[in-house]
Amino acid sequence: MLNGNSIGKALVLTCFGESHGACIGAVLDGCPAGLKLTIEDVQAEVDKRKPGFTSVSTRRKEEDRVEILSGIHEGYTTGAPICLIVRNRDVKSEPYRLLRQKPRPGHADYTAHIKYGGYNDYRGGGRFSGRVTVAYVMAGAIAKKLLTYLGVEVLAHTVQIGKIKVAGQVEYDDIRRNVYKNAVRCAVPETAVLMEKAVLKTIEEGDSLGGIVEGIALNVPVGLGEPVFDSLDSDIAKMMFNIPAVKGVEFGAGFQAAYMKGSENNDQYAVRKGRVISLSNNAGGVLGGISSGMPIVVRVAFKPTSSISKRQKTVDISRMEETEIELSGRHDPCVVPRAVPVVESCLALVLADHAIRSGKIPRVLENDKQ
Amino acid sequence: MLNGNSIGKALVLTCFGESHGACIGAVLDGCPAGLKLTIEDVQAEVDKRKPGFTSVSTRRKEEDRVEILSGIHEGYTTGAPICLIVRNRDVKSEPYRLLRQKPRPGHADYTAHIKYGGYNDYRGGGRFSGRVTVAYVMAGAIAKKLLTYLGVEVLAHTVQIGKIKVAGQVEYDDIRRNVYKNAVRCAVPETAVLMEKAVLKTIEEGDSLGGIVEGIALNVPVGLGEPVFDSLDSDIAKMMFNIPAVKGVEFGAGFQAAYMKGSENNDQYAVRKGRVISLSNNAGGVLGGISSGMPIVVRVAFKPTSSISKRQKTVDISRMEETEIELSGRHDPCVVPRAVPVVESCLALVLADHAIRSGKIPRVLENDKQ
Amino acid sequence: MLNGNSIGKALVLTCFGESHGACIGAVLDGCPAGLKLTIEDVQAEVDKRKPGFTSVSTRRKEEDRVEILSGIHEGYTTGAPICLIVRNRDVKSEPYRLLRQKPRPGHADYTAHIKYGGYNDYRGGGRFSGRVTVAYVMAGAIAKKLLTYLGVEVLAHTVQIGKIKVAGQVEYDDIRRNVYKNAVRCAVPETAVLMEKAVLKTIEEGDSLGGIVEGIALNVPVGLGEPVFDSLDSDIAKMMFNIPAVKGVEFGAGFQAAYMKGSENNDQYAVRKGRVISLSNNAGGVLGGISSGMPIVVRVAFKPTSSISKRQKTVDISRMEETEIELSGRHDPCVVPRAVPVVESCLALVLADHAIRSGKIPRVLENDKQ
Amino acid sequence: MLNGNSIGKALVLTCFGESHGACIGAVLDGCPAGLKLTIEDVQAEVDKRKPGFTSVSTRRKEEDRVEILSGIHEGYTTGAPICLIVRNRDVKSEPYRLLRQKPRPGHADYTAHIKYGGYNDYRGGGRFSGRVTVAYVMAGAIAKKLLTYLGVEVLAHTVQIGKIKVAGQVEYDDIRRNVYKNAVRCAVPETAVLMEKAVLKTIEEGDSLGGIVEGIALNVPVGLGEPVFDSLDSDIAKMMFNIPAVKGVEFGAGFQAAYMKGSENNDQYAVRKGRVISLSNNAGGVLGGISSGMPIVVRVAFKPTSSISKRQKTVDISRMEETEIELSGRHDPCVVPRAVPVVESCLALVLADHAIRSGKIPRVLENDKQ
Repeated sequence: MLNGNSIGKALVLTCFGESHGACIGAVLDGCPAGLKLTIEDVQAEVDKRKPGFTSVSTRRKEEDRVEILSGIHEGYTTGAPICLIVRNRDVKSEPYRLLRQKPRPGHADYTAHIKYGGYNDYRGGGRFSGRVTVAYVMAGAIAKKLLTYLGVEVLAHTVQIGKIKVAGQVEYDDIRRNVYKNAVRCAVPETAVLMEKAVLKTIEEGDSLGGIVEGIALNVPVGLGEPVFDSLDSDIAKMMFNIPAVKGVEFGAGFQAAYMKGSENNDQYAVRKGRVISLSNNAGGVLGGISSGMPIVVRVAFKPTSSISKRQKTVDISRMEETEIELSGRHDPCVVPRAVPVVESCLALVLADHAIRSGKIPRVLENDKQ
Repeated sequence: MLNGNSIGKALVLTCFGESHGACIGAVLDGCPAGLKLTIEDVQAEVDKRKPGFTSVSTRRKEEDRVEILSGIHEGYTTGAPICLIVRNRDVKSEPYRLLRQKPRPGHADYTAHIKYGGYNDYRGGGRFSGRVTVAYVMAGAIAKKLLTYLGVEVLAHTVQIGKIKVAGQVEYDDIRRNVYKNAVRCAVPETAVLMEKAVLKTIEEGDSLGGIVEGIALNVPVGLGEPVFDSLDSDIAKMMFNIPAVKGVEFGAGFQAAYMKGSENNDQYAVRKGRVISLSNNAGGVLGGISSGMPIVVRVAFKPTSSISKRQKTVDISRMEETEIELSGRHDPCVVPRAVPVVESCLALVLADHAIRSGKIPRVLENDKQ
Repeated sequence: MLNGNSIGKALVLTCFGESHGACIGAVLDGCPAGLKLTIEDVQAEVDKRKPGFTSVSTRRKEEDRVEILSGIHEGYTTGAPICLIVRNRDVKSEPYRLLRQKPRPGHADYTAHIKYGGYNDYRGGGRFSGRVTVAYVMAGAIAKKLLTYLGVEVLAHTVQIGKIKVAGQVEYDDIRRNVYKNAVRCAVPETAVLMEKAVLKTIEEGDSLGGIVEGIALNVPVGLGEPVFDSLDSDIAKMMFNIPAVKGVEFGAGFQAAYMKGSENNDQYAVRKGRVISLSNNAGGVLGGISSGMPIVVRVAFKPTSSISKRQKTVDISRMEETEIELSGRHDPCVVPRAVPVVESCLALVLADHAIRSGKIPRVLENDKQ
Repeated sequence: MLNGNSIGKALVLTCFGESHGACIGAVLDGCPAGLKLTIEDVQAEVDKRKPGFTSVSTRRKEEDRVEILSGIHEGYTTGAPICLIVRNRDVKSEPYRLLRQKPRPGHADYTAHIKYGGYNDYRGGGRFSGRVTVAYVMAGAIAKKLLTYLGVEVLAHTVQIGKIKVAGQVEYDDIRRNVYKNAVRCAVPETAVLMEKAVLKTIEEGDSLGGIVEGIALNVPVGLGEPVFDSLDSDIAKMMFNIPAVKGVEFGAGFQAAYMKGSENNDQYAVRKGRVISLSNNAGGVLGGISSGMPIVVRVAFKPTSSISKRQKTVDISRMEETEIELSGRHDPCVVPRAVPVVESCLALVLADHAIRSGKIPRVLENDKQ
């Protein structure tokens, strides 16, 4: 645990692989036995973040065919660790060789080089590439399936790209229906058009854009989260900050809560259909680190892609001399659209982990098969 | 680890105790041997968050005298776990008894009751009270001392209370000099006056205010942080979200980065005094989850205190009937001022943990004593 | 987790304190809410290993009054961490000062000194004293109580001291009845007499004796243990090796299995009262790392106490010169009798940990109280 | 961590795969950057336990070609997780289908079936097959290479098969020279002949044999091991008990220490070539859970292979009826010979883990390359 390539306590994801290595892989340990799972369940989620297939995506084109190496037998999970991989196919390492001594601004090139004494696989960002998040999505697909056991549904959608924002509250049905119908993964079609335009313009400029993704979990039972240090929100936040390019995370009213009075921010209680609910959800579904039964709402801020084709100042670190670079690699002009299924997966992984921890999902699932 | 009362991987803080129990305690395991440490080092930090001593604090008055039960011998840490406690003295549990079945809006009362089947110690919020953060500060005092081994300095200050914000960049020297000279822990004296006024007004109204605390770490070596899942920012964010009332965390440009272009947000490199630096710090000192050598800058959003004296809607959970409450307990009208040393401590704990993990602080410190 | 003062994954014991420090303490995190628990429950177990009260024990006399600092409210566990301490009273550190540079053969004096750069608290063995096991027993008392929820019973008894061995299989009822009636904690009264004589003789000689303790758990449900690396036997063994002076651990036929054929060693299955049982128990209740429903049987070998009054060769480590020592401290002439409740506690702790991990003990216990 | 497929704290091995699944795999996380490593380094160790190539091995023949999927770049470790797999080729699952409801005595069939609700992959023992230990050996190969950084050498040899034992102390050079020259992995050629004969005879009888493997580590620095709960011996023992068929583990004098007096068992100190050594090594190189600088000596008892062709009593668990079985699968008649490289690997893994934990192996290795 000195290294940090595993996360979760009941449902543990270990991730391996590099952008230009043989593959990206995930080992998911702790998945209960008896979950019906096909490779298509996983492939469908992976397809949502597949690079190279939309107007606003990188030109690196990866089919990302999922292989399951262990943990499934006769169509059900066995309780043993599940290893999943996707091979790297469309790899062009040449441009990176030139950059080896010239770290790209905004990237991990410099920090990774120093940390690993120059031994890190720098090709395509190596271990620091956004490509590693395909492992999150493979594992997240299983987590999402697990959560259906509790009736929990996990959603995500783009709420901001650059200066274009979704106005007001979005209906859950619009998210379900619209998000994967447009290239920017936005639930509001008109806003999606504007966002796509903004990205296309930024591509022309050789620049990039940031944005915000909102993750939502519905029907979460009361009681997930382990205070004081494994509170549900702290674990979700930690997971989100492990998506490359994330710079901020907030729940419910989030940073806006700083402006509010207690009387405005407090979510007052009521009874509806025999259940305790709150009349507002400024808490974003988490109180005292424990799920309240209201929707979990988390917003994740992404910085603009670091790799831009504009000329930038950098340093030749072998000579310690100032210099400049212009990048020619293939990059997403805005990571937000492809981050939407990643945010969804991350949220699902943390919720499934806590659902198992709390005993709400048992170690062996009941099926008619048995 | 099903429960979550420990955090850290090299420097592990285990926290115990309840608001109205015998004491609040911390066990810090993994502190290197050979650190010179007196009880005064810890007491000085604990005094910074002591309740009951300023115009804007709760009226619960606790001296919070630190006792060290283990791990120190002849003035140095021994490498064994360090247990520290403060006793709870000024306890008034009566008001809480009435609320047992009526959860306070915005509090953990409801979620904790459900999670623990009614067995949780509800008095004063029990395990969910902000009072548990005195454990963070006791441990953080040791972490701060440890970090001096690397020359790392950790600071924190209030940058917003309600609608009053600190304008522009604050000098580090103003933070060092001014923060603990005013009740609201703000580095800008004029703003401090306005903030204090705002809090006093809110007390009169029986209401409460939120705000933002900024944590800063200077002189952090390049290379702290363990990608992909124990990145430095993800661990800092996790720790911060474990402070009660936190609803958002961002680094550097944070949520503002969502509005920016890559060419604006990227921190370009240069050489100064033989070291690689960046010309801006939108990254907040973390790139690819690893410290870059630039100052770590994290902003933490606090919601307004949930306990307000205004009448609020709630539910009698034993009868499942809607009802109302008016609170009479003793509470901070704004948690921000007393959260400043907590943010400082949390930042120090994570940095010290990672400094040990990465080998930058050895398991035995060299001293002239040896 | 670089340091190793915590153990367990669902029920986590963190231990602190030194032999001649303020106290020995335990924090037990992960105990389900709703367990009825009094201080007397814990005190009764601690009394079983209390030093200074039998003919064969050290002359250091400690009342070992248990204090509970957290985690209990209105007579039930709350789900929060439980901190328990016993104060050190009868401390005589003087003899140890002289030995500081002259490590006692067979002790941790030398290895601890090197590991901690001389900063370790050497008094009475400090952190390496058998006295730390009072923390195991305090926590074990809670684990034993938890296991009653499943009907699991944990026993331990002395089966060998020096050359005196218990012959044949011992009835469980004899263990329940006799063990704490004699000073050597042996279930067979006649053998107990011989063992006590052997120990008294060794005291006269200024020497010490080793022995073997057997731990037994009855009525353990099938299915505890998490292969491949947290198998039930591996976790029990790990726990046992963390009792000072343990040099060997075996299950069921143990080392004798090396001499056997498969046809002799295999435990064949049968059905009794509608349950699958095995006709022998050479496996000691664990198959493939998972409990089989048969009694868990573990034998733990203790070396003779290292501290003897006979003259021994050692080295003055500050001068790197060979020298000799004669010890005058107060020590158990044989650790086995006082290790019996420790083995019992260790077995209970691992079983309770796995019972929670596997979901067999829920996070909140049902009581009539609710 | 509810599931137990990972082990280690600084050097973490995660293992996946089943006996008759696609592959057996290992992810090793925490290996320092800069270790020169070729696939041949790993293959050479894996070849030592390859099934099907000696007179006393199973007839299942697996080439066990190692594939490295991540973590190596330009011939050096990068600091990223290393994933290694071997494919399963020679798989015959038919015989196992018949046994599905009839658990083999001495196997995990019954316990795994109950634990995983019948969802476990039962083919060839699935996750409970000795075949999973190829993952330990792949990872162990890297650990062994890492340990050369400290000059540590790890050895293992067969000291007992059935009633045939190696007499007296074996020279390290005989272990180095002879072990892999005979089918039973014994360092004494004459004894090896007797052991091989005994195994061949047991094959004829349709029976199996147990035995003992001794692991030795030379030149281990003083100071590895983290008391009180991650003592070096407890971690080695835990690892060994995770090798299928292990029933006992002892260090140094081990169970014999129970018969000894302190004056016989204590290892007295002396100075040799400016270093503190002990005149005997009854401690097996560990004092107070910390390495003493003397050779680590651990003995591991293996039960006879459970799968024998003799008729045995079992239970049809779907009908809860007593019945009998005769096995026809392919099995090692004695696991000891192929366990020798596994014991070696396990010892190396724990030592490397602790060497990194203690800071004795840095996170980045120095090479002339840099």
